Amino acid sequence: MPQLNENFLRLEKNYLFINIAKKIKAFKEAVPSADIIRMGIGDVTLPIPPVVIEAMKKGCDEMGVKETFRGYEDSGAGYDFLREAVSGYYKSFGADVAADEIRINDGAKSDCGNIVDIFGNDNVILVTDPAYPVYVDSNLMCGRKIIYADSNEENGFAAMPDYSVHADIIYLCSPNNPTGSVYTREQLEVWVDYAKKNNAVIIYDSAYEAFITDPAVPRSIYCIEGAKEVAIEMCSLSKTAGFTGMRCGYTVVPEALKVIASDGTEVSVAQIWGRRQGSKFNGVSYPVQCAAAAVFTEEGLRQIHENIAYYQENARIIADTMTKLGVKFTGGINSPYIWFKCPNGMGSWEFFDLMLEKIAVVGTPGAGFGKNGEGWFRLTAFGDRQRTIEAMERFSGLVSEMTK
Amino acid sequence: MPQLNENFLRLEKNYLFINIAKKIKAFKEAVPSADIIRMGIGDVTLPIPPVVIEAMKKGCDEMGVKETFRGYEDSGAGYDFLREAVSGYYKSFGADVAADEIRINDGAKSDCGNIVDIFGNDNVILVTDPAYPVYVDSNLMCGRKIIYADSNEENGFAAMPDYSVHADIIYLCSPNNPTGSVYTREQLEVWVDYAKKNNAVIIYDSAYEAFITDPAVPRSIYCIEGAKEVAIEMCSLSKTAGFTGMRCGYTVVPEALKVIASDGTEVSVAQIWGRRQGSKFNGVSYPVQCAAAAVFTEEGLRQIHENIAYYQENARIIADTMTKLGVKFTGGINSPYIWFKCPNGMGSWEFFDLMLEKIAVVGTPGAGFGKNGEGWFRLTAFGDRQRTIEAMERFSGLVSEMTK
Repeated sequence: MPQLNENFLRLEKNYLFINIAKKIKAFKEAVPSADIIRMGIGDVTLPIPPVVIEAMKKGCDEMGVKETFRGYEDSGAGYDFLREAVSGYYKSFGADVAADEIRINDGAKSDCGNIVDIFGNDNVILVTDPAYPVYVDSNLMCGRKIIYADSNEENGFAAMPDYSVHADIIYLCSPNNPTGSVYTREQLEVWVDYAKKNNAVIIYDSAYEAFITDPAVPRSIYCIEGAKEVAIEMCSLSKTAGFTGMRCGYTVVPEALKVIASDGTEVSVAQIWGRRQGSKFNGVSYPVQCAAAAVFTEEGLRQIHENIAYYQENARIIADTMTKLGVKFTGGINSPYIWFKCPNGMGSWEFFDLMLEKIAVVGTPGAGFGKNGEGWFRLTAFGDRQRTIEAMERFSGLVSEMTK
Repeated sequence: MPQLNENFLRLEKNYLFINIAKKIKAFKEAVPSADIIRMGIGDVTLPIPPVVIEAMKKGCDEMGVKETFRGYEDSGAGYDFLREAVSGYYKSFGADVAADEIRINDGAKSDCGNIVDIFGNDNVILVTDPAYPVYVDSNLMCGRKIIYADSNEENGFAAMPDYSVHADIIYLCSPNNPTGSVYTREQLEVWVDYAKKNNAVIIYDSAYEAFITDPAVPRSIYCIEGAKEVAIEMCSLSKTAGFTGMRCGYTVVPEALKVIASDGTEVSVAQIWGRRQGSKFNGVSYPVQCAAAAVFTEEGLRQIHENIAYYQENARIIADTMTKLGVKFTGGINSPYIWFKCPNGMGSWEFFDLMLEKIAVVGTPGAGFGKNGEGWFRLTAFGDRQRTIEAMERFSGLVSEMTK
């Protein structure tokens, strides 16, 4: 009888967002007339900008003609035209990342889950709590020891390291999912220093970097001196350019990132990661890579920033509503997420059910992101403008009623 | 200091095809004028058929319009329209696979590598030798014990089980990569019986099923009675429809496939696989899924079969050359691969270098696929017709010279 990886049996049965989808489905069946507004899963709603669609269609046409048809990529790391474009994008906000330090992927989630393969199971994993569930789940699947750094109301949901505690691998996400908080340059310098003192590797998730408006907030860990010796960075076009259904992202493993093997030899992490990807991944669809490259052109950046500005205005509307209602929150600036404290000390899932039943607005219960998320709740700014306004009117009614 | 997964350090430094690409690059630099014919990596060369390109472009257009834009898939398992199409395709050759037993992926290689995640590391893995390197590498990366069933000249490179040896997980591939051999119905019945007697799971790679012309040869493990209780199947559109650069495939984990956990409870393998994919994968690009669905329409099947027929004629030309030269081989029928014995008892890599230097034809050294591949060599029929003929003329000259 084959033995299962029984770590899976100790996980929650379903991935968080699949549980939420099931709850919505049940509610829709119970109340078919309900006019549900979805502000739960962090999914975009605006269409892909025209310059990106045209580039993808051009890529499709090339695949239909023998002379321009493309089969397997030699390396599976992404076409040079796209890796160069991503490298140039990094340069635009002050991070020095070479094209050959970048591997193109089908979205940050895959690499975020798969990167665990290249590390041993005896590492101590440090995750800020609350966090994107994949950091925790992908390590629990290997049976690893996870320790947590608390993000909470007191520190503005921006956990800092405890130098008395050792970790080998550290997950950071800024702008943060789910809390919308951002790390300042000084805070990231502390994390890089902590990583160096512990010979640790930082896995830095910058999926929401495009929402940063404050020029003092770093858009990449590589804006911090010395970070290339300690950090892997993962980013995605999902939120930057509405690619949640297109599937393209990138992972940076700098040449300078080395680890000492048990026999004392120095090993390039990029080489090991390349070996993993070479065996288990065959690259991203060529037309999708064409679309991604168009995002980084001057016109592409102009068009996607129109969409980002639209979402930022939604975020402002949600944040203003919270302020008016006297609801405590983080995010909404430099981030598409608003993370608020449930009224009347309610639990996250309790408030989820209440919002769904009373005002048919779907959000994400903070408890789904870790113990410090209990009693907190995430809303996203990725919706339609009118629907966001409508949701906030319903929300204001509900909260005013609850707190009067 | 983070501990690496040191199993990686015990692998060959590069994936086989990356090593070959490097050798070709070095040769091109040394002899810039060389007219290289590539029959190494199993990559297609004909463009994607028009009906498929049109469907993909329609999918692109939908992504550019708010009303038809699609973000994340709820499940990440693939859109119903594509899962239904794959289910119908299975039905067309006598395999009963329900749409909800199918998960769409970005190509068989990813799932073939990632499926190992859901099984424990103490399983005994059985691989037929020679084999596609991912079966071995992805298990070596977990430090697993691998045993081999010999495919060799005596058994026509179609290894059969040894009932005196126990295995928990069995990799089979038919039509076989690299040997081009196929399992008959009777042979697959034996494998299913062996799996049942050992409570083992078969991982069945049917990536080349579309090349089967003999109606007596099963195109799916699920053509065998009882296989749904013991087998996972992986297939891909790479070879079926020229999707090597488009990236789409599918994995079947039947509802009937159950495993007993150490606490005695019965666990659905599909549920655990869904949990893995739900956390570490976000589905395939929507326009790519549109393209894939078009493959399974009546017109799509007609157009891809024109391409397959073209490759089959190439295979016939290569096979006829081998027959004329008196070179022993398998494949060429029901398969796009021709697997031949190197002349004069030469080693595989030795013959690789000779072919590259003397006639500038690239093939794949059999030794790259396992110990039984030593002294054998793989050519693919995926090339251009005239180039295939030209390669066979050069090959005939070389072999005649060597053996006269």
